[in-house]
Amino acid sequence: MMVRAAAAVGDAVVDIDTPALIVDLDVLARNHERLLASLEGLSVQLRPHAKSHKCPEIARWQMAHGAVGICCQKVSEATAFVDAGIADILVSNQVVGEKKIRELCGLAKRARLAVCVDDLQNVNDLSAAATAAGVTLEVMVEIDVGAHRCGVAPGQQALLLVKTIAESPGLTFRGLQAYQGAAQHMRTQAERESAVGWAIELARMTRDLIVDSGIPCPVVAGGGTGSYLIEAGSGVYTELQVGSYIFMDADYGRNDWHANQMPRFEQSLFVLTTVMSQAVPGQVVVDAGLKASSVDSGMPVVADLPGLRVVRASDEHGVIQSDPTSTQFSSLDAVRLGQKLRLIPGHCDPTVNLYDTLIAIKNSRVDAIFPISARGALL
Amino acid sequence: MMVRAAAAVGDAVVDIDTPALIVDLDVLARNHERLLASLEGLSVQLRPHAKSHKCPEIARWQMAHGAVGICCQKVSEATAFVDAGIADILVSNQVVGEKKIRELCGLAKRARLAVCVDDLQNVNDLSAAATAAGVTLEVMVEIDVGAHRCGVAPGQQALLLVKTIAESPGLTFRGLQAYQGAAQHMRTQAERESAVGWAIELARMTRDLIVDSGIPCPVVAGGGTGSYLIEAGSGVYTELQVGSYIFMDADYGRNDWHANQMPRFEQSLFVLTTVMSQAVPGQVVVDAGLKASSVDSGMPVVADLPGLRVVRASDEHGVIQSDPTSTQFSSLDAVRLGQKLRLIPGHCDPTVNLYDTLIAIKNSRVDAIFPISARGALL
Repeated sequence: MMVRAAAAVGDAVVDIDTPALIVDLDVLARNHERLLASLEGLSVQLRPHAKSHKCPEIARWQMAHGAVGICCQKVSEATAFVDAGIADILVSNQVVGEKKIRELCGLAKRARLAVCVDDLQNVNDLSAAATAAGVTLEVMVEIDVGAHRCGVAPGQQALLLVKTIAESPGLTFRGLQAYQGAAQHMRTQAERESAVGWAIELARMTRDLIVDSGIPCPVVAGGGTGSYLIEAGSGVYTELQVGSYIFMDADYGRNDWHANQMPRFEQSLFVLTTVMSQAVPGQVVVDAGLKASSVDSGMPVVADLPGLRVVRASDEHGVIQSDPTSTQFSSLDAVRLGQKLRLIPGHCDPTVNLYDTLIAIKNSRVDAIFPISARGALL
Repeated sequence: MMVRAAAAVGDAVVDIDTPALIVDLDVLARNHERLLASLEGLSVQLRPHAKSHKCPEIARWQMAHGAVGICCQKVSEATAFVDAGIADILVSNQVVGEKKIRELCGLAKRARLAVCVDDLQNVNDLSAAATAAGVTLEVMVEIDVGAHRCGVAPGQQALLLVKTIAESPGLTFRGLQAYQGAAQHMRTQAERESAVGWAIELARMTRDLIVDSGIPCPVVAGGGTGSYLIEAGSGVYTELQVGSYIFMDADYGRNDWHANQMPRFEQSLFVLTTVMSQAVPGQVVVDAGLKASSVDSGMPVVADLPGLRVVRASDEHGVIQSDPTSTQFSSLDAVRLGQKLRLIPGHCDPTVNLYDTLIAIKNSRVDAIFPISARGALL
């Protein structure tokens, strides 16, 4: 790697070079404890999504603190985690294409591996490859419970696929993947309850059809940071796939968390940035732009300085101005060249994917530097 | 690296694993020839921006074909190119902070290095560090010619900074950085001519002030893919910093190129993706989402299949539907699971930054695999 490290263990936060991705370890731990506390007494298992952090250290920590395994979204991502010793992974996604399926079967020799399907031909391809490789793949049938992305229609279509899997050599049917991704960022609890309520009914109906046909359906999986407690209390879902809860981001921060039983997680993840120009009146410019913080869910938010906002970003620059709509006030005049600011990313997952390392902070010092081993694991 | 390679030299395009970033070498060469042809007879030099490709192979090729050097936007990016043997680099950006300035001075021992400034304290910091390191840094004063990002006000303010640089040990004044970034994506030639016309007047006025004060100002630099021919014909600008012209992207494709003398560059850069789900009616889902194609300037565009469009992207998925507004027609029914499609990224620079390698295609085969050595070079 030609890229110089942004920090060394023991450095003060203020000495970290920027832009850098930092995580507050105490907040991260509190978020996880809050999650576990909210699930007390409910019979669901926790399989956090590792696509958010892509970081074996965090996955190991989650598994040491109540998680039964992790989810990955890509085979190459799963490979990074198996290489790091994670022994139980659900690829919560379709795996299509000969090379990827071959890699998946190779992983199944080294760890407990499951994969999602929503297509008959894909089931046949997986069965042939698993048989050729001499492995058994556990398979989840993904049903479309309202996100309208992947997944067969709940009910009879799903049952047809389940029956095929049950009869396919090299495959074992594990259960239903029923993630309502579209519900996670609905702003009110009422909207999320309505959307997830319907998902629960669709999952229950499909599970009952499967069980009535004589095929066990031990797992129903889904639930994201915005809705997981609704799935957890349903009596239908058995496994939760929350990812962002450990970090949070500006977009999740815009959800209304007050009117409900959901715990409000704290922001633990920040892009540390430096003020690099104050030459143009009415603004300062920081060294974190589109390559340092994903803007798909809006601009990053300036932490610690209420009343200032990132108004636009270009490849390597973020422009910060006073927010005329804010009732709070931080003066731009108090911000000096070279000053370091913390930004809350708009969306944590694609922002993490921009960095090779996650700098772990404890008591305002660098406690550890975690490799983001699955960064760029697109295949 | 744990990430499996998406392809090997000699592979057919259709056998490349996805998502992958591919570039058509013939188109890339045509774009460069078109650029050179458009500049014939004009006395400007070409210093292409390497923040677009981050790829030493392409930088070397540009320098072998008429470029006098390259631009970088970050010190760590410049380090990757100096390590790869590029001998003349302008960091077309402010460098703020002790560690970065020290790294910059180190590079100045190994290559011809210049940097931009827009702040007096920063000039003093650079001077002190260059003196301590025993190097001479060439310095460009950035003036704000309308983009309102970085840069001092043109005219007397700029002159004050130039005079300070001329008197600072360890520094040499090279010229003015006068990039009108906001003009590049204005849709009509009339808008671009108006914005860049004003930038030219501001740059001319400032240059004349400097020269009249007895300080030579050999370089006036700027010009992007959307406007460079206007700067090139101004008689004021001496160096062009075009970057995207070799690749193009969907956003530049939306510029109106017809009504003017600007050459229309061809799309050479694509995200190759695979159809991974067709279970939900009315759409197909591809395996390239937010982590495979930056959406800051809009969704990627489906190449080769007019009438289909990417309607939304999540972290690892892109959803493609028929475009009801299109007069052209490609049926979704003709798209099959496992089929590979080419997407035109919305914005080339941050998309390139998502990949470790750029797969170079010639005659529908993988001709070479270029490391994107400055990928993630944020510091």
